[in-house]
Amino acid sequence: MSDVGRPKAWTRAHSRELARTPVFSLSAHASVHPDRPGATHDFYVLDAPAWVNVVPIADDGRIVMVRQFRHGIGQVTLEIPGGMVDAQDPGPREAAWRELIEETGYDAGRIEPVGEISPNPAIQSNRCHSFVATELVLRGPPANDGTEETEVVLVPLRQIPPMIRSGEICHALVVVAFCHLLGLAEGPA
Amino acid sequence: MSDVGRPKAWTRAHSRELARTPVFSLSAHASVHPDRPGATHDFYVLDAPAWVNVVPIADDGRIVMVRQFRHGIGQVTLEIPGGMVDAQDPGPREAAWRELIEETGYDAGRIEPVGEISPNPAIQSNRCHSFVATELVLRGPPANDGTEETEVVLVPLRQIPPMIRSGEICHALVVVAFCHLLGLAEGPA
Repeated sequence: MSDVGRPKAWTRAHSRELARTPVFSLSAHASVHPDRPGATHDFYVLDAPAWVNVVPIADDGRIVMVRQFRHGIGQVTLEIPGGMVDAQDPGPREAAWRELIEETGYDAGRIEPVGEISPNPAIQSNRCHSFVATELVLRGPPANDGTEETEVVLVPLRQIPPMIRSGEICHALVVVAFCHLLGLAEGPA
Repeated sequence: MSDVGRPKAWTRAHSRELARTPVFSLSAHASVHPDRPGATHDFYVLDAPAWVNVVPIADDGRIVMVRQFRHGIGQVTLEIPGGMVDAQDPGPREAAWRELIEETGYDAGRIEPVGEISPNPAIQSNRCHSFVATELVLRGPPANDGTEETEVVLVPLRQIPPMIRSGEICHALVVVAFCHLLGLAEGPA
C-alpha cells in the first residue's frame, strides 16, 4: 500500500442550481480542500430521488423482464422493473413493488432487499436499492402511463449471465441487481 | 410472454441544451412516438465522452485500487482506476491505460477488454468500457492533477465479493467491471 495522497474530504462553500428536470436537478458545488482554504473548485452533481429496481422470479424460475424504449441511448432495452422513489412511496421497498406492478402487471407475495449501490458517486448523490420479488401473480396488463410502453418478457435465470456478456442486458444498474442477487463467480469468467 | 406494448422507437423532433459542464452536457430532447405524430414529449439526457475503468491485477493476485473523495456522495470511496476518454486518447483502451498510470503509478504489460455497459440508458447516451490490466510494474507515485488526490490500496481478489456485499465497494460501474471479469455465480448469493 502506498501512503501517497491520503484523500481528505472537501467542504462545499456554496452551490448553484444549473438546471432542474422532472427526474433530477444539476448543481455546481464550489468546494474547498482543507489544505487550500482560499481556493474553490466547481464540481457538478446530479441530485435525484433514490432509485429502485427489482428482480422478479416466477415460480418456474423465470425472470420477469421489461423491454422499453430508452431515450438516453435511443434504443429498446431489456431490463428488470425499476424507477424512482416517488413522494407518495413510503420507502424504496414500496416503490419497487409499485414499479413491478405498473411495468409488468405482476404482483408479488414477497419483496426482499438484496443490496444497494451508488449509481455514480462522482457525479450523482443518490442510491439505487435492489430487491428480489417472489410468489408472483399476474394481475393484468402493465399500467403504462402516457409515455411509457413496456413489453413483458420471461427469461430463464440461466440465460442472464450470457445476456450480460453479449450486451443484450446493457443497463449497469440491472447488472448490479443480478450481482447482488447471485454473487460473483470465484474466478475469471 | 405478453404481447401488450411492443415498444416502438421514438424520433427526436428537436433538442435544446440546458447546461454544459466540463464532464457532460444536459439536453432536453422533444421526441415523438410514431403512433402519435402530433405530440412531442421532453426527455432529459446527459451526453458525455465514453467512460473507462480497469481492474489492475498484480502478479501476487491483488487488485490495485484507489481511494479518493467523490463529490457526488461527498465521501471517500474505494474504486478501481477509471475516467473518461479524453480527446487526445486514441480510444478507450489507451484511456484506461492512461488512467491506470495517472491514478496509481502502475504501468501494465497487458491491458485487455472484458466488457462494456450503458451506465444508464434512460438518461445517459454514453458507454463505459471495462478492461483488465496485468504484468504490472510500479513506475512512481500517482500523477494527481490539481483537484485529484488518490491513495493506492492493494486488495486481495477474494475480498472483492464481500466488499461489494458490505457496501465498502459502492460504485455501480466498479461492480459491473468485476462482474464482467469474474462472471456471476450460479445461484443466489
